[in-house]
Amino acid sequence: MFREIFENIQKKKPLVHCITNYVTVNDCANMLLAIGASPVMADDVNEVEDITSIASALVINIGTLNSRTIDSMILAGKKANEIGIPVVLDPVGCGASKFRTNTTFKLLKEIHCSAIRGNISEILTVAKGSGTTKGVDADESQAVTEENLDQVIAFAKELSIKTNAIIAITGAIDVLCDDTESYVIRNGNALMSKITGTGCMLTTVIAAFLASNNENKLQAVCTAVSIMGISGELGYKRIINEDLGTSSYRTFIIDYMSKMNYELFREGEKIEIR
Amino acid sequence: MFREIFENIQKKKPLVHCITNYVTVNDCANMLLAIGASPVMADDVNEVEDITSIASALVINIGTLNSRTIDSMILAGKKANEIGIPVVLDPVGCGASKFRTNTTFKLLKEIHCSAIRGNISEILTVAKGSGTTKGVDADESQAVTEENLDQVIAFAKELSIKTNAIIAITGAIDVLCDDTESYVIRNGNALMSKITGTGCMLTTVIAAFLASNNENKLQAVCTAVSIMGISGELGYKRIINEDLGTSSYRTFIIDYMSKMNYELFREGEKIEIR
Amino acid sequence: MFREIFENIQKKKPLVHCITNYVTVNDCANMLLAIGASPVMADDVNEVEDITSIASALVINIGTLNSRTIDSMILAGKKANEIGIPVVLDPVGCGASKFRTNTTFKLLKEIHCSAIRGNISEILTVAKGSGTTKGVDADESQAVTEENLDQVIAFAKELSIKTNAIIAITGAIDVLCDDTESYVIRNGNALMSKITGTGCMLTTVIAAFLASNNENKLQAVCTAVSIMGISGELGYKRIINEDLGTSSYRTFIIDYMSKMNYELFREGEKIEIR
Repeated sequence: MFREIFENIQKKKPLVHCITNYVTVNDCANMLLAIGASPVMADDVNEVEDITSIASALVINIGTLNSRTIDSMILAGKKANEIGIPVVLDPVGCGASKFRTNTTFKLLKEIHCSAIRGNISEILTVAKGSGTTKGVDADESQAVTEENLDQVIAFAKELSIKTNAIIAITGAIDVLCDDTESYVIRNGNALMSKITGTGCMLTTVIAAFLASNNENKLQAVCTAVSIMGISGELGYKRIINEDLGTSSYRTFIIDYMSKMNYELFREGEKIEIR
Repeated sequence: MFREIFENIQKKKPLVHCITNYVTVNDCANMLLAIGASPVMADDVNEVEDITSIASALVINIGTLNSRTIDSMILAGKKANEIGIPVVLDPVGCGASKFRTNTTFKLLKEIHCSAIRGNISEILTVAKGSGTTKGVDADESQAVTEENLDQVIAFAKELSIKTNAIIAITGAIDVLCDDTESYVIRNGNALMSKITGTGCMLTTVIAAFLASNNENKLQAVCTAVSIMGISGELGYKRIINEDLGTSSYRTFIIDYMSKMNYELFREGEKIEIR
Repeated sequence: MFREIFENIQKKKPLVHCITNYVTVNDCANMLLAIGASPVMADDVNEVEDITSIASALVINIGTLNSRTIDSMILAGKKANEIGIPVVLDPVGCGASKFRTNTTFKLLKEIHCSAIRGNISEILTVAKGSGTTKGVDADESQAVTEENLDQVIAFAKELSIKTNAIIAITGAIDVLCDDTESYVIRNGNALMSKITGTGCMLTTVIAAFLASNNENKLQAVCTAVSIMGISGELGYKRIINEDLGTSSYRTFIIDYMSKMNYELFREGEKIEIR
């Protein structure tokens, strides 16, 4: 199944429409190209429906949310629902301002999302209506640990049932679930938190994998999360070997994603079914 | 002549005003600095005329077009026409939405462009009024090949006469022409299509070369297109040697542009006069 | 004292709210993460007060100024003043358009800034009300040299008294002062001017250092300016050794900032008390 998930993205070459923030947008575009997908970034209310109509998936990322683009997000999301392509929501900084929290709820009310990816604080805010997100980073006191893992899985499953979306909580330990199954992934490296946009990039990768794998959806999301982590592990080795720092690390993570294949995945994946 | 074209950019150090998209804007700025020019990005209607007034060229790129900046584009373009500096249009994604297509025509009606650079699908849309651009990438069925090359040149020449602009259709094979002469360039590497913004960056390089070479305009554009391709060839060798991927490739292309000179150009250029 | 300045940033991990331009925003975010701080970029009028409220410093950068965000800058600045966190102003391109110049004065009237960082032309414009900034680069005829250094220091001190802000004029030679003390810093490399955003990145680093060092403010700014220059020196050596260009240089500067520590600083600093 996982081999097929990889092959499908090469066959489909999905076009992913991103309405996203201006901080990490370039990395998101390069990441989509790296894995064999195509990006199109468009956020004006006059064109988002046209663009979504030719796309295979839609990403909505509220990272530098502004009033002008909320209507665009809703129009694009409704069009995506209408034509049956996946919508992936990245509620960046949800909980850090009332504006982001309220917009997230508005989006979830108006649009059906196939998947929601965020850090633990963002996803807790999505579930509970208010949160303690520190800017765009998770509140450390809420971190997913081996100790609270069962609770987090239970909470994620509940949210998945409520939203009818795959929930992906990513961090040192990643928790993924739909309404019935759940996975825990332990790939990655702590230094990934010292690069902006690893979460945003992962969201676009999830969208591309979902667009190419209408069956095995949760496993497609698992694959996306795992290969991002594997690239983080390989990139980390390389910067240590070459005595480089965090900016080279960013470059190498995208590099390894562009060289990723089923064999590297099978060798490196640390996916646990729960 | 080509040696002079190179020297002129070092002498003039042209300031290039870019009204461009937020996806590739950082790469465009770094590319302009790499070749010895200076970037200034400004898109607010309250300042674009002031900024164009101190610039040596204007780039208009519709990559993340929004309603707010269309007026800015027109004001800046009219100012550029008034003071006699070149305007280079990059109709990114023209054909992918009615909004982009209509705006392209509006811009071409209101402003005289010295050059228009795009992929084959974008340029076909500029000529025909509607197109099949796939997001921001060319429709593969429209690719320029050795078989249809004569037709593409004839079509480009016709569009050049109609718009009174140099036409640059870039892709695996590049076609450049004005109303009388035409060139075909075969520099570059297929992997360049796996990096976002190679087209946008090239457009800014074309603007800098035009700004510095008021005579030999078409040859200046040729030089810009060829050195971008040569850098793509040199960068490709390096990522293969060092076992790197697409993000390092982006870095190396800008690196080689910053190290480009007349000798590297003369050795590497694959320019054919047609 | 300087060792303490370094340790404080690791202890405090300051969250820096940036209202900044879309050209260099990604580099600014990665730079903040590289030095142990956290970025949050938010510019919508509906959320800037919420975001500033949870931040340790605010950066206002007018690099791609637009009408929509001026109110956001003022609201965030007033909130920062109210809660007593430092505001650092980067008047990018001040003098290149009336819009930027007027907005700078409006900001300085409404908000108290802890520090203002710019190139010599931008800071001269801040002091004199009109200027000759070339796009976003300094007018070469105004460059700080060994010959005019005393005059520049006197001028900067006067501006510091007038604005009640630390003044940081950065370029080949950096001049820093408050109303009583002044420093000259000679770290860095000329090639840094061939990368976009070194100034913007430095402004965010200054904000992070100020946020973590409420005492020794001027020395904190000195440290920020010096380590940026040291990273520029180390990065330059590396690109020469590896035969690379300006884009790798950008990467290495951030890399060395992520590896910076008190020992590297003490070994490399070229700070002179005047």
